[in-house]
Amino acid sequence: MSQPPALPRRDTKWWGWGAADHPAHLSEDAETMLRELLGAEGGRPAPSLAAVELPPPSPLPAGIAAAVGAEFVVTEAEDRIRHAAGQGYPDLLRRRSGRLDAAPDAVVLPGDAAELLRVLEICAGEGVAVVPFGGGTSVVGGVEPLRGGFERLISLDLGRMRRVALDRASLTARLGPGLRGPEAEAALAAEGLTLGHFPQSFEYATIGGFAATRSAGQASSGYGRFDDLVTAIDLVAPAGELKTLATPHTAAGPALRELIVGSEGTLGVISEVAVRARPAPAKRLYEAWMAPSFLEGATIVKALAQAGHQPDVIRVSDEAETQVNLRMAGLAGASRRALDAYLGLRRRRNGALVIVGFEGDGETVSRRRQLAARGLRGGGAVPLGRSPGRAWNRGRYHGPYLRDELLDRGVFVETLETSHTWSRYEELNDAVRGAISSALEAGGTPGLVMCHLSHAYADGASQYYTFMARQRPGEELEQWAEAKRAACEAIVAHGGTITHHHAVGRDHAPYMAAEVGELGIDVLRSIKDRLDPAGVMNPGKLLP
Amino acid sequence: MSQPPALPRRDTKWWGWGAADHPAHLSEDAETMLRELLGAEGGRPAPSLAAVELPPPSPLPAGIAAAVGAEFVVTEAEDRIRHAAGQGYPDLLRRRSGRLDAAPDAVVLPGDAAELLRVLEICAGEGVAVVPFGGGTSVVGGVEPLRGGFERLISLDLGRMRRVALDRASLTARLGPGLRGPEAEAALAAEGLTLGHFPQSFEYATIGGFAATRSAGQASSGYGRFDDLVTAIDLVAPAGELKTLATPHTAAGPALRELIVGSEGTLGVISEVAVRARPAPAKRLYEAWMAPSFLEGATIVKALAQAGHQPDVIRVSDEAETQVNLRMAGLAGASRRALDAYLGLRRRRNGALVIVGFEGDGETVSRRRQLAARGLRGGGAVPLGRSPGRAWNRGRYHGPYLRDELLDRGVFVETLETSHTWSRYEELNDAVRGAISSALEAGGTPGLVMCHLSHAYADGASQYYTFMARQRPGEELEQWAEAKRAACEAIVAHGGTITHHHAVGRDHAPYMAAEVGELGIDVLRSIKDRLDPAGVMNPGKLLP
Repeated sequence: MSQPPALPRRDTKWWGWGAADHPAHLSEDAETMLRELLGAEGGRPAPSLAAVELPPPSPLPAGIAAAVGAEFVVTEAEDRIRHAAGQGYPDLLRRRSGRLDAAPDAVVLPGDAAELLRVLEICAGEGVAVVPFGGGTSVVGGVEPLRGGFERLISLDLGRMRRVALDRASLTARLGPGLRGPEAEAALAAEGLTLGHFPQSFEYATIGGFAATRSAGQASSGYGRFDDLVTAIDLVAPAGELKTLATPHTAAGPALRELIVGSEGTLGVISEVAVRARPAPAKRLYEAWMAPSFLEGATIVKALAQAGHQPDVIRVSDEAETQVNLRMAGLAGASRRALDAYLGLRRRRNGALVIVGFEGDGETVSRRRQLAARGLRGGGAVPLGRSPGRAWNRGRYHGPYLRDELLDRGVFVETLETSHTWSRYEELNDAVRGAISSALEAGGTPGLVMCHLSHAYADGASQYYTFMARQRPGEELEQWAEAKRAACEAIVAHGGTITHHHAVGRDHAPYMAAEVGELGIDVLRSIKDRLDPAGVMNPGKLLP
Repeated sequence: MSQPPALPRRDTKWWGWGAADHPAHLSEDAETMLRELLGAEGGRPAPSLAAVELPPPSPLPAGIAAAVGAEFVVTEAEDRIRHAAGQGYPDLLRRRSGRLDAAPDAVVLPGDAAELLRVLEICAGEGVAVVPFGGGTSVVGGVEPLRGGFERLISLDLGRMRRVALDRASLTARLGPGLRGPEAEAALAAEGLTLGHFPQSFEYATIGGFAATRSAGQASSGYGRFDDLVTAIDLVAPAGELKTLATPHTAAGPALRELIVGSEGTLGVISEVAVRARPAPAKRLYEAWMAPSFLEGATIVKALAQAGHQPDVIRVSDEAETQVNLRMAGLAGASRRALDAYLGLRRRRNGALVIVGFEGDGETVSRRRQLAARGLRGGGAVPLGRSPGRAWNRGRYHGPYLRDELLDRGVFVETLETSHTWSRYEELNDAVRGAISSALEAGGTPGLVMCHLSHAYADGASQYYTFMARQRPGEELEQWAEAKRAACEAIVAHGGTITHHHAVGRDHAPYMAAEVGELGIDVLRSIKDRLDPAGVMNPGKLLP
């Protein structure tokens, strides 16, 4: 095993996503397109770390250092800055502004559940707000240091809690919440296993965060969402420890496991997660097709899912995203002309790109691929081969890096997602697409709205929107809020869920009553009151 | 459609399971075996309905009749008796005793959610206990009329709430809670669909009950347990209505759906369930194999489940259950001698019977059967062909009828179930089997303890115990309590779940703290306090 990382980790850009030396992705062609489409011309570069303004830290109760060891209560400016925001667009704006009005007073790193419990008891007793922090990759304001009326706030970093215990016979593993995706996969791979959970945030997000937010990986259609993988979970709350039984299934009452999963740090801190693993696939095969249109592509996916023939990875980009993806791919002139000619010949030049992926043993992959191909052809899709599929796989974690490059160029870029049943899929798609476009246009920055389907079920599918416009200098946050609000209102008006896999955090909390009803909110509050009576856990998140 | 049934329904034996004219199942051979094994010689016949002693009904608040219509507040003795117990062994003893010390004061049948809400509000306001009643098939005391300190109690019969609304495009259906299994399947079959949910109680149990108890059907390894099928659920509680969003999936916080599913009438009444359906299979194929032993059979199932190759139905009977099943089958002499010779030749005479079932289109059935056969042969099982598979399918709902016949003959018969991970499967099996045997022996009635595995997962499987002994006349309930307690204590001591699919009810409530911890109990109570502050909903069930 390699050296354990120094904690808290500092191996990413403090002002954006991932490692600073990660290669750039924006091709010259893509830049040209952005200028043509959006009129964006250069943005504000990130300031230097040393120049960031930060409020002075308030002193914490001495018991916290006694509980975890003084070296694990960190108050250095860099760490406070790194823990002061997640990776949502408003978070990135705040970081780039060079001025953080809110930051944790300290970053606290407990070593185990007992230390964690002690810290939470002290915080509850002394009135210190606690924001649990795994990878800090929330895009919905989940780690924003909102104090909720308390004068002090700590970021509770799970970086030291990275235990791995495999039960090979049962194909399960107990995993510490602070393990990043690649760390957990490495431990499982040593035993020939995988979780199969690969969201776009995979490189930096953690096991605890996956569980706390009901994360969905890009292969969720095959492996299941993260919440499907959890067999048991431990929560450390200010009121004590809550552990669900590790059992393949039980009929013993309401599922407390499903209360802890998705609780987003508002009830306590997830201290361990038991998950189902699978044998690592011998073969992985990704390929691309071109469907006649987005909705016809969705119809193909519906038929595959309802027949039980859906691939492990299934994505359909709408016409706009397809065009952008093809241009972003930075194909050399000859390749592009050949593709263009082929699509013209097959009358799919304005089609919808479909990525399908199959994982497993060779025999299974080849049989399932054949079943999917039958459905794709039957639905009017034409094959583009493995090369664009491989390209998708290579770039599957690149989105957030690209976002930083776009911000550098003055481009407002945001994503959001929902899902609905097949019977209302098109209705929701029209509504959300229209709402975002209208909001951008009303703000004087007409934009590009793209959508893809990336998580398929027999009864429906997700819709994932990416939209871009040139930034409104000095009004970047208002611009974001207008588009976000329009989209969320359209979603709830048409019966979609406010979030398919980004979670609620701060940004979606105002829409929770539409999602679960007033009585549902009251029930969630009564649970919180029991586990966190002082209300110190992640204030301002999840509940309106 | 046929005539709607008169309500409350009276189409079953009031003192036991199913229709009175259902043919008997106990072969002469089986009777001989019982005498040999257990020494049981005749029991007490059921008394006449007219002779049953019943406490006089207390008058109810007038508002209840005003809410549902006077004709739907039923106080006839027969209906009160029918709603005074479920189908557990203690329930059957009480019914057969001819004396019911507890019975509902009335059976109330609301017509829709609005009437239901009004009834619950009145009951909460006036202090009337409410026991929701679907099919009345609970085997864990789930419908016992425990008053919880209230002077009056109603049985809330869902028989009028049997709405069906299909969403064909999304393969989902919204179903009323009072629909019995066959009614729901008939409505779906008209559109070429099925739920695939066929528990042993299928003929009489209801949709609301399936959801309230986390029922698991015999084909759950293929179709999923009932809780897997639920996409949204409506609860009417004394505090109001709680409806979860109908969406293929959501990341919007803790899953309130999973609080309502499994709530066993203690939080409110399930008023509608949205479920995933599937295309009805073109082909169903059941066949039998003989594994070398129960544990080797379980190992075969484990390998199939972990490879994703498990059949839709997979059952492994232990050696004792296998012998009883073969004798119960009532094979004619020649068939039996042939089977015996074959098993002798293949050295599987003391083996473990395996039933596998495949459902789907012809191609899928044949491919999956081939994969399963490979695993079965690899694990040392020998094929017995389709005839015993078909026999299992014909008899799949017969268990509860048989139990009545056994009681007629003075046989104590009970079932209970648990599950565990594969790594602790054998440990739990040894412990529970030993505990039941010892308890029966200590009571002076050594018995027969049998087990089967019938619900398989990649991480573990269920264990379903059936045990029999001759009754201890005059101490039937003590005899039951001793065996039940011994089994439950062994289960919790070895980390198994107190129930895999029978639910908690009255009988398992004392073990809930072992299942979810004291803090877990407190959280469940806080939810109940919010939804049912007066505590009128199904007192004495689920929570200790």
